[in-house]
Amino acid sequence: MESPVRVVQYGLGPIGQATAGAVLDRAKTGQMELVGAVDVDPQMVGRDVATLLDDDRAETGVVVTDRPAAVLHEQRPDVVLHTTTSALPVVDEQLRTCVAAGAHVVSSTEELAYPYDRHPERAKALDRRARAAGVVVVGTGVNPGYAMDTLPLTATGVCTSIDAVRVARVVDAGERRGSLQTKIGVGCAPAEFEAKTKDDALGHVGLQESLRMVARGLGWTLADVRETIAPVRADRAVETPHCSVEEGGIAGLHQTAVGVVGGRERLSLDLQMYLGAEESYDAVQVEGTPPIDLRVDGGIFGDTATVGILVNTASLLDTVPSGLKTMLDLPVPRANL
Amino acid sequence: MESPVRVVQYGLGPIGQATAGAVLDRAKTGQMELVGAVDVDPQMVGRDVATLLDDDRAETGVVVTDRPAAVLHEQRPDVVLHTTTSALPVVDEQLRTCVAAGAHVVSSTEELAYPYDRHPERAKALDRRARAAGVVVVGTGVNPGYAMDTLPLTATGVCTSIDAVRVARVVDAGERRGSLQTKIGVGCAPAEFEAKTKDDALGHVGLQESLRMVARGLGWTLADVRETIAPVRADRAVETPHCSVEEGGIAGLHQTAVGVVGGRERLSLDLQMYLGAEESYDAVQVEGTPPIDLRVDGGIFGDTATVGILVNTASLLDTVPSGLKTMLDLPVPRANL
Repeated sequence: MESPVRVVQYGLGPIGQATAGAVLDRAKTGQMELVGAVDVDPQMVGRDVATLLDDDRAETGVVVTDRPAAVLHEQRPDVVLHTTTSALPVVDEQLRTCVAAGAHVVSSTEELAYPYDRHPERAKALDRRARAAGVVVVGTGVNPGYAMDTLPLTATGVCTSIDAVRVARVVDAGERRGSLQTKIGVGCAPAEFEAKTKDDALGHVGLQESLRMVARGLGWTLADVRETIAPVRADRAVETPHCSVEEGGIAGLHQTAVGVVGGRERLSLDLQMYLGAEESYDAVQVEGTPPIDLRVDGGIFGDTATVGILVNTASLLDTVPSGLKTMLDLPVPRANL
Repeated sequence: MESPVRVVQYGLGPIGQATAGAVLDRAKTGQMELVGAVDVDPQMVGRDVATLLDDDRAETGVVVTDRPAAVLHEQRPDVVLHTTTSALPVVDEQLRTCVAAGAHVVSSTEELAYPYDRHPERAKALDRRARAAGVVVVGTGVNPGYAMDTLPLTATGVCTSIDAVRVARVVDAGERRGSLQTKIGVGCAPAEFEAKTKDDALGHVGLQESLRMVARGLGWTLADVRETIAPVRADRAVETPHCSVEEGGIAGLHQTAVGVVGGRERLSLDLQMYLGAEESYDAVQVEGTPPIDLRVDGGIFGDTATVGILVNTASLLDTVPSGLKTMLDLPVPRANL
């Protein structure tokens, strides 16, 4: 029996809480051990992490702290599961603290999933630090990290030639947590939707990261990347536990990213997240030899899937050379239970 | 521009010829270079490899030889693409010759895809030799290697818990090459089917390898592995370019492998290959959190897919530590074009 992977959970929002729960579940089989929990929220600090989780968990003895460096220094975890926010510049210092403590980092920060284009200097610096510390830093999640990049790449794995790759993801946002509904503009007035889009206060972060990751994986040079974002109108009134929308109101968004390769749009990612979507699904079409027409009926449910891939990735870092990595550098993803 | 991967094609049956063709296609972009071709068939030896391929290719200057050690020594390829036969004991010496020449080996030998259980001693010895030579040896293909192991594992990558994994592959064998039709017993009398099954002269090789690879990937201990093989009867007369079957005759086979984990059948692989299948498809059902219901409509066309994954895998070995490996140890598969 191998010794358990020692984990610090950094960030205790809804995803972080669920991730901590998944780590505690794996403690039962001796696979993982939760040795620390970090959040800046004063309402959380000092509480046993078990009291934050929905379910009836026994006290863990792990108390939330807002002093990450101290707990990392004291506990020397193998891995930090990091779930704070989307923007790399905001989390950069947090990641450095983890790396300095000699811990691998698996982060849900969307901009970290493929940071080389949007944040080349930060990526270089992080890579340098991670190598020096002998640890792996990787950004992943359901999207970016899986549904619109790793899964489509895997679909191409059997192709001898490819003309184009088309990826579509439709999410019925009514089934998802409330914070997603804010992120996709549910209930916004049109002007507000537009203004928030311009300010990056709204919209899915990571479509460009996925596009660039797929292109890199395929060895394709992107001559241009084109992105669009538009509201989706409700074709009927929709009510969910978190919010409601009138007929004709903004129910969510439709985002696309297209990659131009050799003068043609050979790569396209199409994401719709809105209340009342008839069906959620993920689809990958590889126009190639052989053609691949892959579909996940019902879609890949984001809230639990992100937790799954974070925890699963933490078990796959042993053979990965140190440095800043992406899903391209990691072994075939899989649950390890 | 990186220098091209220097490839020797070892084995020039239908799959080997197509693989050589794919390497020649990648020579056009400077990605690969075909530097040797090996086969024991006296009808092939001495001919330019281009003359073996269906299409109108210019002469390559690469002449088929039946002396692998000599061409490997002379050309010092980076990778050998090895496509001779299914049984590891039969190809063991061939693989050793490649390893001794310091070449990585990507092989379609089914029993090499996950050799640790069926051939533990050979696997250990190969691993030792590969490490000593600083090269990677890996078995892959569409099945085993992808459709019923790597793809299902990838489907589990987002799961926090899994109750069971069910994989199904249906292949309309009428669309495939003639050698497959022999392998699946098309046109056999019932007694002949049974006798050939007992002699391992018939049937898909690799289902058990896939099952064991998935179990290993998931960290599941198999208490038992149960296999079945049965003929599929034609419900109508079927005619293909390669052969024909009367109504009620044997049109192919239905093979299953089930893995018992913790007293329950938590892993099942179900393979049907027969003439006249209404639709080919690949399906993966992960009963877990979240549930994943993945389907490849039209299936993953085996003849070209095996060529694809062989050639694509050859481009993914740079960062893999040396030794005998499986798809579990390799990065996310993808085409690199």
